[in-house]
Amino acid sequence: MNSELLVRVTRYYRALNRLRAIGLEKVFAHNLADAAGVTAAIVRKDFSSLDIKGQKRGGYEILQLVEQIGKILGKGDVQNVVVMGCGRIGKALMHYSGFEPDGIKIVAGFDSDPMVYADASSSIPVYPMTRLDEVVQALSVKVAIITVPEVAAADCYQRAIDAGVKGILNFSPITLRNSVLDDGSTVVVHNINIALELEQIFYELQFPKQK
Amino acid sequence: MNSELLVRVTRYYRALNRLRAIGLEKVFAHNLADAAGVTAAIVRKDFSSLDIKGQKRGGYEILQLVEQIGKILGKGDVQNVVVMGCGRIGKALMHYSGFEPDGIKIVAGFDSDPMVYADASSSIPVYPMTRLDEVVQALSVKVAIITVPEVAAADCYQRAIDAGVKGILNFSPITLRNSVLDDGSTVVVHNINIALELEQIFYELQFPKQK
Repeated sequence: MNSELLVRVTRYYRALNRLRAIGLEKVFAHNLADAAGVTAAIVRKDFSSLDIKGQKRGGYEILQLVEQIGKILGKGDVQNVVVMGCGRIGKALMHYSGFEPDGIKIVAGFDSDPMVYADASSSIPVYPMTRLDEVVQALSVKVAIITVPEVAAADCYQRAIDAGVKGILNFSPITLRNSVLDDGSTVVVHNINIALELEQIFYELQFPKQK
Repeated sequence: MNSELLVRVTRYYRALNRLRAIGLEKVFAHNLADAAGVTAAIVRKDFSSLDIKGQKRGGYEILQLVEQIGKILGKGDVQNVVVMGCGRIGKALMHYSGFEPDGIKIVAGFDSDPMVYADASSSIPVYPMTRLDEVVQALSVKVAIITVPEVAAADCYQRAIDAGVKGILNFSPITLRNSVLDDGSTVVVHNINIALELEQIFYELQFPKQK
């Protein structure tokens, strides 16, 4: 599946779960198109390419679609994630409620500052960075969110790899790259650079794209 | 400038400002390549396409590069930004220190909950959402960060447009789209969907891309 199709299918899946949560049983290509920011024709084409069949008039059965797309996306058990760096943004992400509908659970935070990890008020535990290996193994954590300052990012990435983490969502301003491990597997990194996004918006405002 | 080149140039610019801040005067294509996650050959090619000339041996003068690239990126005055929705993530972004080196300043937050906007402890003011127009006009705000819950996102986007905001960085899980206004100008929207990024990482781990 190419990455654009994957983004769309993930969006369909999220929309379906939300529609199911509010009690709907049927959905039309138009509904999913609106949710994913595409046209209904694209939804139908995507479904056809994924071999998903819909009723001609009555729309698609939501429950059935969730199952089919869930299988395609490899959904199943809850996915445990840890947050490395519990400053403002790290803490906000630890307690972000938007992950749960997607089966993603933040199970722990890590910080190198005793003032942070000794704070017992958090509903999700915060551990010293030195306990990363232990927690990652005990909870089968595959993915870590990195929200440490720039100077600590590269070190933090290496620690995550050493602990056995296979996927990284990096919010530090340093661009981290996918790593190929000795066993041939790849550590998948996605970088979200918030300042860079803002700068690009300012740039596009100043120099509008040619139509 | 195409968007991939823009991303690279913005990264060069950020790296240059950081190097300058620690007292360096010269920089080599290799340094910038590392910072931007590309090869030195690409840096040289980009500079050549932007008509930036470097010394053959001694590297580039940082100060001169910052000026040249700043002009290309349309840099100058500080850019004022507001945050709409002052929950955990909104507040974290309001106080994020990573924007300042790029000349971006968060000047105000907005929330519809009196418990939030009546809180005087914040070093950056938080106003009721109804005062958006007034603040946007008074401080010449061009860009808003949207961090409201899903149900409020579309309404919040419309409010921002009505207030005269021209660019949106959207963190809500709803995908917002660029809008063309009556005067023919475009409201530029960038969407950052954190849950979606995590899901894509899990997907890529389960179904690795073919090399």
